[in-house]
Amino acid sequence: MIPFTYHTPTRYVFGPQAECRAGAELSALGLKNVLVVSGHGSARRSGVLGRVTDSLTEAGITWTELSGIDPNPTDPKVREGIRICREKNIDGLLAVGGGSVIDTAKAIAAGVPYQGDFWDFWAGKAVVGEALPVAVVLTIPAAGSEGSGNSVITLTDGMRKISLRTDVALRPKVAMLNPELTYTLPPEQTAAGIADMMAHILERYFSPTDDVEVTDRVSEGVLQAIIAEAPEVMADPCSYQARANIMWCGTLAHNGVCGTGRLEDWSSHAIEHEISALYNVAHGAGLAVVFPAYLTYVSRTKPAKIAQLGRRVFGVEEADDAKAAAITIERLKAFFASLGLPLTMAQLGVENPDIPLMVKHLHENKGTLLGNYLPLDSEATTEIYRLML
Amino acid sequence: MIPFTYHTPTRYVFGPQAECRAGAELSALGLKNVLVVSGHGSARRSGVLGRVTDSLTEAGITWTELSGIDPNPTDPKVREGIRICREKNIDGLLAVGGGSVIDTAKAIAAGVPYQGDFWDFWAGKAVVGEALPVAVVLTIPAAGSEGSGNSVITLTDGMRKISLRTDVALRPKVAMLNPELTYTLPPEQTAAGIADMMAHILERYFSPTDDVEVTDRVSEGVLQAIIAEAPEVMADPCSYQARANIMWCGTLAHNGVCGTGRLEDWSSHAIEHEISALYNVAHGAGLAVVFPAYLTYVSRTKPAKIAQLGRRVFGVEEADDAKAAAITIERLKAFFASLGLPLTMAQLGVENPDIPLMVKHLHENKGTLLGNYLPLDSEATTEIYRLML
Repeated sequence: MIPFTYHTPTRYVFGPQAECRAGAELSALGLKNVLVVSGHGSARRSGVLGRVTDSLTEAGITWTELSGIDPNPTDPKVREGIRICREKNIDGLLAVGGGSVIDTAKAIAAGVPYQGDFWDFWAGKAVVGEALPVAVVLTIPAAGSEGSGNSVITLTDGMRKISLRTDVALRPKVAMLNPELTYTLPPEQTAAGIADMMAHILERYFSPTDDVEVTDRVSEGVLQAIIAEAPEVMADPCSYQARANIMWCGTLAHNGVCGTGRLEDWSSHAIEHEISALYNVAHGAGLAVVFPAYLTYVSRTKPAKIAQLGRRVFGVEEADDAKAAAITIERLKAFFASLGLPLTMAQLGVENPDIPLMVKHLHENKGTLLGNYLPLDSEATTEIYRLML
Repeated sequence: MIPFTYHTPTRYVFGPQAECRAGAELSALGLKNVLVVSGHGSARRSGVLGRVTDSLTEAGITWTELSGIDPNPTDPKVREGIRICREKNIDGLLAVGGGSVIDTAKAIAAGVPYQGDFWDFWAGKAVVGEALPVAVVLTIPAAGSEGSGNSVITLTDGMRKISLRTDVALRPKVAMLNPELTYTLPPEQTAAGIADMMAHILERYFSPTDDVEVTDRVSEGVLQAIIAEAPEVMADPCSYQARANIMWCGTLAHNGVCGTGRLEDWSSHAIEHEISALYNVAHGAGLAVVFPAYLTYVSRTKPAKIAQLGRRVFGVEEADDAKAAAITIERLKAFFASLGLPLTMAQLGVENPDIPLMVKHLHENKGTLLGNYLPLDSEATTEIYRLML
């Protein structure tokens, strides 16, 4: 294990009607005038947004709405939110939605007290110091943003999609998680969320750091739970227990506990970000295409950890590492396919991907070598994109 | 899964020389004048206390020492600490030690701003509101107090040993964990610590709440890591990797992540507390005696979860639940024995335990029925004590 600091001060409130606690929870944080950030109306139609704002009103908290956040969120809405917050002396953000909404709220929270352009943080030109407090009512278990300090925003000028990681500054103060809110998610969104949370674990699992048995075992445990509950949640979308397990898995997958004491990889996310930035595909669905291709490439030279994953999580009994790795990748693909997830660029809806352009952007954004487990140069990433065809 | 709140704001600083960060970490908390709490001199002899206080001095923090905290800590030292803190206007506590030292520091932290007697919190007559901030330099991985909101204190008047559980009020603000500090632990203390952390997981694992797959899997993962690393840590006490894994397991075992979404049991801890209160045995060693007896009693009517534990953690392949449970209990005992832990009252050094007195105290402290997985009346707890003979 390598030295680490681990600090997850987010307060999780989990269970039925968690969203109705918004007023009380935000009051406990001392908030009086908040910006409620949401997506394209599903939170309003389902009634959750109404329950949240009623709860704020009952608690004496005034609020302004910013809706219409897109999947793969972009900078214009962030700028709009920063302007509103400054005009109205907003003292906190409440995101009602999934990762895109939460990430936008975080970007606004970072930008409001900052003199320069908020993108400076994403471009690596400045470090987030103070930020407005962010609270979350989660409606899509996938991105794990409710428990992370990260935020992914795409700059429309050049379609640069960049993930900002902070230790604590942008971690939500409170996250309200009601599994019932996820009953109405379309199956493809549930499935993409499952791929996303699995990827968050695998990005940490494929680490050059040895001797992290406890972190490996916790990671494998969360993966096993996802694999056990996923069929149930697809077959019976209103199974509270399955939805609850999947929702909490999504948080644990990305709040850091699966990464303690080791270098993480994150090359697959970077590879996917170029696909969703150019072709606006669902991030989770993109990851279902990327991960098997990444593992296939890696298995050619470093099969041992893939074999361990297979033996501990996918029931693989093969003794030879290379063979075990191959079986593991097939089982992962079969699992994704069983959820209706795409496995190729074509199935993802991208018929003729511009691989050279994605590779160019990728290494411009991330440097010559990508990832830590098996550092990837442009030849390697080109091959990985080809493996998705 | 049942509704829950989960809030672990402790900042963990993990790695070599973590204790040398004490000054910087306490400064970041705004502390200027602290009480440094420690045990019977091993922290001084090993040099860790000197490094910690040097670090405080360098950071401009003044400090007063309170040493001599006993294992199974009692109220007189708490009262002494409260008096010192009030006299010297202490603004925070720094515990340098294991669970007894940390629990004493927490009790002092709760007592200082309280008008009444600190024991009111343990006696259930008052609820901890504000408390002084507590920081920790951990030297014994076992109790998990570095990441929990709990504190176990024994009232000398009547030798009543009671565990206070708080949600957040008594969680340490920062815990510094340097695995190297545990190299010099005597083998019996290392082993007792391992039994203690395993018990913290099992108390949560044996739950009447079904459908907590993710929490089960995480719990099983930490148990698997403990079982994998324990032989290494006993054979090579200076193995950094094994010590690091065990240390982090001890924190995860008790910071709440193994309990999310379910009722916990805690009958075995209560049963053990009566043994250590009367006979002053090491808590972890006591748990190694209690847990197999508890599981043996439970297996007579509810073997299924014990069988699951065996199949997922101890490699049991038996299909019949009752038989699998019996094998699991034997493997747990064999594992404890392999660490040199006692399995009977006599091996624990208690030749003629006063079972009726322990049962009487137990149910006076905890009520007619003990625990949640299989609620135990006095007949049941008497039988469990007898199973330890």
